[in-house]
Amino acid sequence: MTKEFRYRQLAADMERKILQGVYLPGDRLPSIRSLHRSADLSISTVYKAYVELEHMGLVEARPRSGYYVAPVSLRRLKTPRFPKTDASPRKVRLSSMINSIVSAINDPGLLPLGMTVIDPELVPYKSLGRILSGISRNEFKSMLSYALSEGHPELRRQLARQTLGIIQRITPGDILVTNGCMEAVALALLATTRPGETVAIETPTNYSFLQLLKELNVMVAEVPTDPKTGIDVGALEKTVQKTRIAACLVMPNFHNPLGTVMPAENKKALMRLVETYEIPVIEDDISSELYFGDHRPKPLKAYDRHGLVLTCSSFSKSLAPGLRIGWLMAGPRFKERVQNLKAGTNVSTSALDQYLMAHFLAGGGYDRHLRTLRTTLKKQAVRTALAVQRYFPKGTRLILPEGGTLLWIQLPQNTDSLELYSRALSSNISVIPGTVCANTGQFRNYIMLSCGIPFTEEIEQGIQTLGDIACELASELE
Amino acid sequence: MTKEFRYRQLAADMERKILQGVYLPGDRLPSIRSLHRSADLSISTVYKAYVELEHMGLVEARPRSGYYVAPVSLRRLKTPRFPKTDASPRKVRLSSMINSIVSAINDPGLLPLGMTVIDPELVPYKSLGRILSGISRNEFKSMLSYALSEGHPELRRQLARQTLGIIQRITPGDILVTNGCMEAVALALLATTRPGETVAIETPTNYSFLQLLKELNVMVAEVPTDPKTGIDVGALEKTVQKTRIAACLVMPNFHNPLGTVMPAENKKALMRLVETYEIPVIEDDISSELYFGDHRPKPLKAYDRHGLVLTCSSFSKSLAPGLRIGWLMAGPRFKERVQNLKAGTNVSTSALDQYLMAHFLAGGGYDRHLRTLRTTLKKQAVRTALAVQRYFPKGTRLILPEGGTLLWIQLPQNTDSLELYSRALSSNISVIPGTVCANTGQFRNYIMLSCGIPFTEEIEQGIQTLGDIACELASELE
Repeated sequence: MTKEFRYRQLAADMERKILQGVYLPGDRLPSIRSLHRSADLSISTVYKAYVELEHMGLVEARPRSGYYVAPVSLRRLKTPRFPKTDASPRKVRLSSMINSIVSAINDPGLLPLGMTVIDPELVPYKSLGRILSGISRNEFKSMLSYALSEGHPELRRQLARQTLGIIQRITPGDILVTNGCMEAVALALLATTRPGETVAIETPTNYSFLQLLKELNVMVAEVPTDPKTGIDVGALEKTVQKTRIAACLVMPNFHNPLGTVMPAENKKALMRLVETYEIPVIEDDISSELYFGDHRPKPLKAYDRHGLVLTCSSFSKSLAPGLRIGWLMAGPRFKERVQNLKAGTNVSTSALDQYLMAHFLAGGGYDRHLRTLRTTLKKQAVRTALAVQRYFPKGTRLILPEGGTLLWIQLPQNTDSLELYSRALSSNISVIPGTVCANTGQFRNYIMLSCGIPFTEEIEQGIQTLGDIACELASELE
Repeated sequence: MTKEFRYRQLAADMERKILQGVYLPGDRLPSIRSLHRSADLSISTVYKAYVELEHMGLVEARPRSGYYVAPVSLRRLKTPRFPKTDASPRKVRLSSMINSIVSAINDPGLLPLGMTVIDPELVPYKSLGRILSGISRNEFKSMLSYALSEGHPELRRQLARQTLGIIQRITPGDILVTNGCMEAVALALLATTRPGETVAIETPTNYSFLQLLKELNVMVAEVPTDPKTGIDVGALEKTVQKTRIAACLVMPNFHNPLGTVMPAENKKALMRLVETYEIPVIEDDISSELYFGDHRPKPLKAYDRHGLVLTCSSFSKSLAPGLRIGWLMAGPRFKERVQNLKAGTNVSTSALDQYLMAHFLAGGGYDRHLRTLRTTLKKQAVRTALAVQRYFPKGTRLILPEGGTLLWIQLPQNTDSLELYSRALSSNISVIPGTVCANTGQFRNYIMLSCGIPFTEEIEQGIQTLGDIACELASELE
């Protein structure tokens, strides 16, 4: 075992014990010397582990006294309670604010606390740039002349490799390269539904899905989803018994906005249900590589015995949002249909972007990037959560995400997140009010915060400003 | 006036006079000396003009005798007669052969006489490669981090410039960048129609449109189109009176497969009709820069006073099929809807491809490329037409295209172009049978030939082989 590995292992163990309340806020932690003796670890190993935890904001060093669990700990952060939903089919009614909210996220003049993608600083543009400048004349010539509709063969091969040990039996031929994850979802929806038909969605859900569903003129039936269980399979079954559901659209792994994972048992229960009723399931697996735990969670596709699952993903969250490369894995039932839709609607995906990705995967650059990114995002999530705990009013709750780039925060009851959004804008901060994540006006007192941005003093100040606004709103309600 | 210009002018004048029958096949042309005297041109100017015409296959030099119009001249090429169509709404019924025909076009093992795009040799990959290698780190970083859904601002500005003098009042804000022309057409169709509704299409039409319309589950009403007049406006009016038409989908400029242009008067008549009935018109303007005449023909959009026209285009035909950059110009009626559809279905177009195009346009590279390409394509079209005339059986007719990359050929009656396609495949030649260009089995004795490939001996031999097969088929019918 290397020293490097030992200190990381110790830090991870300590982190788990703090997050689970084995050590409470303000508790004094074992001294370096005592751990050195009791756990047979070198002084420097223990020291490095404490430095790492200090950097994450979980512990603090008090001069001449030792290490303590940070006074504002994560233990008090509670899982938000969700409102009940009514799963009758409804037209998509987007908030009239949605367009201004989305443009605010991308306004370079604002502090992007509502950004759902990773910060430009985390994009490995140097490695990608080396691949770009290494393109030979002949390769470039062939890229410009022609692109296969299904995708670049080497990219499809590399994508199939990424499923090793995760999804059985995926071959390059099962992968359709798309112009980002949203195109994969759009093709899957076009293949399984027609305008006027109903799609079962989670609530809360990714607001981009609501935008897409509205544009495709499909109806939605909202089924509650919970951080601990994922989509409520029982509630979904009741919906399915009452209404013809053309497809389900779910995010079992690192749900947007929840950041949580549906347990494997529940994934299997969901599959049993859709198999019984023969309902196609579209799953968005875009953040599955951004796990904070030990391993990548399996997608629904791993439990799909009847070819009902259409798995959508991309590199927009885990690598570079400007690179338009996504993919769709559909079983034999839908494969030909989605391929024809892709060929029919936009012929093929950018050959240059595909080339870049194929080489980044083949050269191991993507795996290296992910190893760093996972640690970075996890630290940012913890530090952002701690800052929320510190600066937001009493009654604020949040979920510590299990992966991804988002933090879902419940403000004290009756707090209007749209008002918070407007006041934040006046302070040059963008944030996403929770109302955009549901069709029927729920989640009014929720917001979504980004943890895709390196946690700097500026970010902390931004979160403090947001907290001040939330406190103002809370006091105005009293 | 430069010498360069003088010889080109003379060649163009001579070419026109030959094509219009002022000089007949076999006619002796004025000697170099006589033209030198009568037209006040230098010996070398006249000589160079004749060499150019000889190279195009229009004239031949006979030793010690002078220049003659080539014995197989274009004068005898006749406009194909079109069958009557029945414009009742119908489901799209694609030939079961369509997939194998399309893959044959792109099979590198076959002589691509059915290719609809330009040959890789005509793609200016060196100039584009220089732009690619000139991307700075900062530019690359910003490309990877983020892309605007409507498109790269500089690209939109450059695209708006291309409409100067062609379409009034187009600003960058009127242009939505898409992932190729087919995405523009798909977005326009999604914005104007719903499954089950009827779209009026030309017959013959671009077979890719039929593939797309089928995938979108819309019905089609086929309206005849003619090389001289474009879509039959009278027939369209009758259709509109009988059936609710959700949109029209037309190619007024360098029609695929006809290669001809709808006269301005007919474009205006079409606009009057759609204005009367308030029917949106989707026009594919993809080849309008590939004119063989003096100027680029105006699109319908130039005559659109009520915002009914959605103009779709791309660089796939005129520059590089592997570059996925197209655009859509919709008026205020549909602008927001198509933008939301783009954002909803695939977020944005490849930033790298957009960057390449923006710089190629801004640096003047595209205009320089087009000047060369137009001449090349025109020569190839003439030489291909002459070869067809030489090698195909009696009764073969064709249209000399006014621009673009295609040649539409009518074989003697009862010739089965699908049989010709199969036999050509056995000789390692791909070609497009006319049946795929209509929904109801018309154009059985038509084929589409590419003139996007440099006319080499190999191509001539390929056309000769096709001609031999056509002669075989004709003799089998006797």
